[in-house]
Amino acid sequence: MIIIMRSHVTDEEVNAVENKLKGLGLGANISRGVERTIIGAIGEERSIHKESLQALSGVEDVIRVVKPYKIVAREWHQENTIIDIKGIPLGGKKFQVIAGPCSVETQEQMDLAAEKVAAAGCNFMRAGAFKPRTSPYSFQGKGVEGLKMFRQAADKHNLPIVTELMDVRYLDDFLEYKVDVIQIGTRNMQNFDLLKEVGKTHVPVILKRGLCATLSEWLMSAEYIAAGGNHNIILCERGVRTFEKAYRNMLDVTAIPVLKKETHLPVIVDPSHAGGKAELVPALSKAAIAAGADGLLIEMHPNPCDAWCDADQALAPDELSTLMGEMKGIVEVMGREF
Amino acid sequence: MIIIMRSHVTDEEVNAVENKLKGLGLGANISRGVERTIIGAIGEERSIHKESLQALSGVEDVIRVVKPYKIVAREWHQENTIIDIKGIPLGGKKFQVIAGPCSVETQEQMDLAAEKVAAAGCNFMRAGAFKPRTSPYSFQGKGVEGLKMFRQAADKHNLPIVTELMDVRYLDDFLEYKVDVIQIGTRNMQNFDLLKEVGKTHVPVILKRGLCATLSEWLMSAEYIAAGGNHNIILCERGVRTFEKAYRNMLDVTAIPVLKKETHLPVIVDPSHAGGKAELVPALSKAAIAAGADGLLIEMHPNPCDAWCDADQALAPDELSTLMGEMKGIVEVMGREF
Amino acid sequence: MIIIMRSHVTDEEVNAVENKLKGLGLGANISRGVERTIIGAIGEERSIHKESLQALSGVEDVIRVVKPYKIVAREWHQENTIIDIKGIPLGGKKFQVIAGPCSVETQEQMDLAAEKVAAAGCNFMRAGAFKPRTSPYSFQGKGVEGLKMFRQAADKHNLPIVTELMDVRYLDDFLEYKVDVIQIGTRNMQNFDLLKEVGKTHVPVILKRGLCATLSEWLMSAEYIAAGGNHNIILCERGVRTFEKAYRNMLDVTAIPVLKKETHLPVIVDPSHAGGKAELVPALSKAAIAAGADGLLIEMHPNPCDAWCDADQALAPDELSTLMGEMKGIVEVMGREF
Amino acid sequence: MIIIMRSHVTDEEVNAVENKLKGLGLGANISRGVERTIIGAIGEERSIHKESLQALSGVEDVIRVVKPYKIVAREWHQENTIIDIKGIPLGGKKFQVIAGPCSVETQEQMDLAAEKVAAAGCNFMRAGAFKPRTSPYSFQGKGVEGLKMFRQAADKHNLPIVTELMDVRYLDDFLEYKVDVIQIGTRNMQNFDLLKEVGKTHVPVILKRGLCATLSEWLMSAEYIAAGGNHNIILCERGVRTFEKAYRNMLDVTAIPVLKKETHLPVIVDPSHAGGKAELVPALSKAAIAAGADGLLIEMHPNPCDAWCDADQALAPDELSTLMGEMKGIVEVMGREF
Repeated sequence: MIIIMRSHVTDEEVNAVENKLKGLGLGANISRGVERTIIGAIGEERSIHKESLQALSGVEDVIRVVKPYKIVAREWHQENTIIDIKGIPLGGKKFQVIAGPCSVETQEQMDLAAEKVAAAGCNFMRAGAFKPRTSPYSFQGKGVEGLKMFRQAADKHNLPIVTELMDVRYLDDFLEYKVDVIQIGTRNMQNFDLLKEVGKTHVPVILKRGLCATLSEWLMSAEYIAAGGNHNIILCERGVRTFEKAYRNMLDVTAIPVLKKETHLPVIVDPSHAGGKAELVPALSKAAIAAGADGLLIEMHPNPCDAWCDADQALAPDELSTLMGEMKGIVEVMGREF
Repeated sequence: MIIIMRSHVTDEEVNAVENKLKGLGLGANISRGVERTIIGAIGEERSIHKESLQALSGVEDVIRVVKPYKIVAREWHQENTIIDIKGIPLGGKKFQVIAGPCSVETQEQMDLAAEKVAAAGCNFMRAGAFKPRTSPYSFQGKGVEGLKMFRQAADKHNLPIVTELMDVRYLDDFLEYKVDVIQIGTRNMQNFDLLKEVGKTHVPVILKRGLCATLSEWLMSAEYIAAGGNHNIILCERGVRTFEKAYRNMLDVTAIPVLKKETHLPVIVDPSHAGGKAELVPALSKAAIAAGADGLLIEMHPNPCDAWCDADQALAPDELSTLMGEMKGIVEVMGREF
Repeated sequence: MIIIMRSHVTDEEVNAVENKLKGLGLGANISRGVERTIIGAIGEERSIHKESLQALSGVEDVIRVVKPYKIVAREWHQENTIIDIKGIPLGGKKFQVIAGPCSVETQEQMDLAAEKVAAAGCNFMRAGAFKPRTSPYSFQGKGVEGLKMFRQAADKHNLPIVTELMDVRYLDDFLEYKVDVIQIGTRNMQNFDLLKEVGKTHVPVILKRGLCATLSEWLMSAEYIAAGGNHNIILCERGVRTFEKAYRNMLDVTAIPVLKKETHLPVIVDPSHAGGKAELVPALSKAAIAAGADGLLIEMHPNPCDAWCDADQALAPDELSTLMGEMKGIVEVMGREF
Repeated sequence: MIIIMRSHVTDEEVNAVENKLKGLGLGANISRGVERTIIGAIGEERSIHKESLQALSGVEDVIRVVKPYKIVAREWHQENTIIDIKGIPLGGKKFQVIAGPCSVETQEQMDLAAEKVAAAGCNFMRAGAFKPRTSPYSFQGKGVEGLKMFRQAADKHNLPIVTELMDVRYLDDFLEYKVDVIQIGTRNMQNFDLLKEVGKTHVPVILKRGLCATLSEWLMSAEYIAAGGNHNIILCERGVRTFEKAYRNMLDVTAIPVLKKETHLPVIVDPSHAGGKAELVPALSKAAIAAGADGLLIEMHPNPCDAWCDADQALAPDELSTLMGEMKGIVEVMGREF
C-alpha cells in the first residue's frame, strides 16, 4: 500500500499515518519528495481497507500494490487450470463449444436441439430453465420441470448440461438433476450469497461478467467461489454496456489476453449475448478464438423464429454447423484442437 | 410496435410480418414510403416480444411505442405516491433525510449513531447488517445479530429503520425484527427472485439503481415488486459507472426530473455512495434537492476514521448537523418542508 | 513518480530503473516490501513521460504523484479567478446567466433574441455563427455575416457576446468583431492547435468539456490555453456521454465541487446541451447552482419551434424569464448574488 | 420519419404535425393505435431536422427510418471500395499492415524504422510529424521538418507514408511532401473544418474513430469528407473509452462486422492505441483479422525504450516480424492474402 500525502502536509499528519500502519502490523517507508511525501506500507496489505487510511487527515490518495485476489491469480498458480467435466476437458488444448437454446420450452424442442448440438460437433449443451427477464410479464422459464426435460434430452447424446442458477433455493434441485455446469448470470455476478453457496459445491461454475464489471471485480467474484473451496471456475466474457447503440453490448476482446495473464482460470466467450444478433455471431466467435479464448457459448435454436426468448440472436442448426466448419481453421492456426 | 423493413423488401416479407401480427391478435397498418416500408402493429403490445418480430426475414428494426412498465408509470397513476412509514410520510411535501453508518458494528456504535441521527433532525436511520462486499475477505456484516442491535438502538429514538436485504432466506428475519424499509442494493437491482419475494410483502422498499442500469430497466425492476402487490417503492439514485476516474460514481442528477415525469414513485438520492468521498456529500445533496428529489440517504458514522467500511465517505455527526442546516434553505426555496 | 515493480523482480531490473531515473536527474527511494519492490522517484516529475519508465523490464506500473497541470491548479493559485468581461465579473460572488439562440439565423431573430435576453435579466448573450453539425447536409451557420448580425443585435443592449470558434483561420474575424468571449466547443476540446491560438490572445475563453473527457484531460486543455499566456478561462460542463438513452447526455454535477477544489478557474454549466430537452433545463439549472457553479449557458430562442437547429432544447422567452425568477432564491441561499 | 404522439393527444396536435410535414413537402400516414397515435412521414427525410418536429406540442418521440449517411452507405454502393495507394491496394483481398513509430524523432531513427518496416514485410509506413499531446509540456512533434525526414526514409524502401494532419494550415505542406495517406486522428474526428478541407483533395484519408463516437457519427464524419468529393476513405477503429481501467481503451471488435454491413469503405484496426501496451498487440491484431478487418496500423519503434512518446506500446522490430509470421495463418484462413 502506498499512501500519497497532500502537499503542505504536517509532520503530525505523517506521524499519524505511520502510527495507524504500526497498529495494523505494518512497517512504513517514508519518502519526502520535492512536492509530496509518500509513505510505503510494508507487510501483508490484503486485509487492510484503503478507506480507513484514506480517511486520515493529510492523505490525498492510497494505492494498492498487490492485487486483491489470490486463489484465482496466476501469480499464485502458474499453470492453466483445466476443468474436467464428465471426462471432457475445458481450459486445455482442446477448444470447446457449448451450444443450445436460450430457454427450455418443450421436451420436443429440447430433444431436437440436443440432436442438432451433437450433430454440429459441440461437446456441451446449454439452455435456461430459470430465466432472468427484464420484464415481470415475460416468460420466466420452465423451472424445475425444465431441468428434467433438459437432462433427458442431453443424456441421449451424452452432452454435459450448462444451465443458469438464479436463486440459492434451487441449488438442491440443480444437484438432484446433476447439472454438470452451473451458470451464474451477468445480473448475479455480485450476488455474493449465491457465489458463496456454489462455492461450497464442487460443480464447475461458468461465471459471466457483470454488465459493467471491471476485470478486477469479476476476478473478486471468482475469488468468492474459490474461497469457498470450489476452484472449478470458468470465466465467460459476454459483452459490456457502453454508449454505442448500433448493437447490444460491446464484446471486450481485450479482456481475453488480460485475463490470461492475470488468472489461470479458463476464459470463454458468449458471442450471442454480446452482439445480440445472429448475424454478428460468426465474426465475434472467430475474433474470440484468435484472441485466445478457451471456448464459446453459442445460442442455437431448432427454429429461431419460434423461440420464446431472444429469437433474433439464436443461430439455426445449419448456421451452427457452418460456423463450426469455419472456426476449425482458426482454432488450428492458434495451435489448438477442435 | 413499429416494424421498419429493410430497403428492397419483398411483398412476401411484408405479408409474413402481417400474418405474424395477426397470429398475435394485432392489426397492421402498412405505410410504403420512398425508401422504406413501415408496418404499425395495432393492439396491446406489452405482451409481445420484439425479438420474435426482429427475427423475421426483411425486418430491419422493431420499435416499441408504449413503455414496458405499467403499474409504476405516471401515465397510469397521475398523483405522486406518498409512502407512510410508521406514520412518517415519504414522497410528499416533506423532504426526508435518512442517515446512519454504513454497517452495524457494535451496540455502542449503533446507540451513539442513533442519538446523533435524531439530534441532527433526521427522521429515519440506515445501517447495514448484511453487507455486499467486493472481496470475500472483507467484513461481511453482523447478520441477524446486527438487525437486533439496530432495532434496539433506533427504537430509543423512534427512528424507523432502513437496512439492506441481500438473500431471500433472510426475509423472515427482516419481518421478525420489523424492518421498516427494506433496501435492495445496487448489485441486486436485477435479482428478480429477491424482487418477487419483497413484492409479496407490504414493507416499503428502497430500490437502488444498478451500477449501469438504464432508467427503463430500473423502472422494470420496480414493476417486478409492484406486480407482486407491493406498491410501496422508493427509487434511490446512487451514481452510475462511467469513464471518469476523479471520483467514484457519477451522480445522475438528470434522472430525477426524468423519473418524476415517468413515474409516480418517490425518488431519493444517496450522495455518499455516488461521490464516494465525505467532502463531496454537501454539494451533491444540495444538487439533488434542487433537481427535485424527495429525500436523501446519507452515511454518517459517530467516528468515521474507525468505521469498519467506507470510512472515507461517512460524515461525522457535526458535519451532518451542519449540512442539515445548510440544506434547509434550499428545501424551502423548492417549496418543500424540512 | 512511483514505480511498482513486478513480483520476482531481479536486482538488475531495479538497478536499471534507478539508472534511468538518475539519467533524468531524479533521485530514487527504494522500498522492498513483502510482495513487491517500490521505487519512489524524487525530483520534478512533470517533464518525465510515464511510458518511458513503463517500457523498462520488470516494471508493472508507474503512478504520477503530482497533477500534470500547474497554472490552472488551485494548488498554485489559491484564490478564485474572477474574469472581467467588459466590466462584468464572472467567477466571483455574482452568479451569471448567458442566454441566447443556438445559431444566428437572421438580423430580426437576433434583434428579438437580444431584447428577450436583456429583458430576462441575463448579462451575456450567446449564439453560434459557425456551427459544428454532425451532418454535412445540415445548416452550417451564417459564418462571418452571422458575427456581424450578432454584434449589432447585442450592442443595442450592451450585452457582451459569446460565440464558438471552430477554425483557427477565423480567429482574426473574431478579433475584428470584438467577440467578448470565445467558446471552444466540445468537439474541439482537444484541438490543440486551436487552443494554442486562443492562448495567444487575451480574449476570455469558455472551454467546454469533451464528450467523454476526464476532468484531468479537460484541465490539461485549459493548461494549453494558459501556457500560451491567456489565463481568462471559464470551464463549461455540458453533460457527458454514457449508456443511458432516456435523455441526451448525463450532466456531471459531481464535476463542479471536484473542479472547485482542483482549479481556481470559474465553472459554468450548459443545461440545454446536457439534457437535450427544454423541459429538463429548469431542474438541471437549479442543480448546477446548488452544486456550486458560477454561471449557466442557456439556449433561448424567440420562437423555439422555428429554430434552425436544436429546436427542442431551446426555452421560449417567457420560460427563460420564469426560470430566472425561480433560480433567484437558490442563488441567494447559496450566498451569491443574481 | 416516424412521429410517435403522446397518449391523450388531441386532434389539433395531430393536425399540426400533418401540416408541418406538408410544409416540408412530405406526406403523412396516420395510424391510430390502442394507446398511441403514430404518424409516418412519407418522402425524402434526410434534409429534415428531427428536432423541429420534436418541438411540436403532443410529440413524444421522432424516429428516423433511413440512415443519415448516403455516399458512404453500402445501401447505395454495394461493392467494397478498394483504395489504390501508389499502386498498392487497400480494402480488397490483400490484407495490409501499416507500421512505424509513434513520432518522427531523428533521420537516423526514421531510416532504421523504415528498414525494419520493409524487412518485416509491411507495405506502408506510419509516423507522426505533428503530435496531439494531452499536455502542452510534452514533445509536440518535429513538424514540417519531420515530414521531410519521413519522406526521405520511406522513399528508400518505396513505402507509401501515413501521417496525421491536425491543422488545416499544414495541408499545403502535406501536399508538397506528397503524403500518401492523411490520417485524421481520434481527437479531430469531428473537426468538421479539417474534414471539409481534406474532402477537397484526392489524397486517401485514414479517419480514426473518436474516443466515444458512435458508429453513426463516425460514418457521418466520413460523409463530410465524401461530400467534398474525396471518396478515398479508410475507417480505423482504435478502441473506445469505457469504465474499464485494466487497459487503456476497449477495442470494439463488433464494430468491424457492423461497419462491413453498413459501409463499402475499408476498415482497419489500430491495436497499439487500443490496448495501450505492446504485450496486447498480438492478441488484438489476430482478433481484428478474424473479425474481418482489412488491415492493421501497428506501432513499431527501432528501440521502444528510447521512444519519445508511447514507449510502452510500440513493438520492437523483431516482435513485429514474429507477429507478421503468426498472423499469416489467420489471414489465409480468412480467405485473404498477406
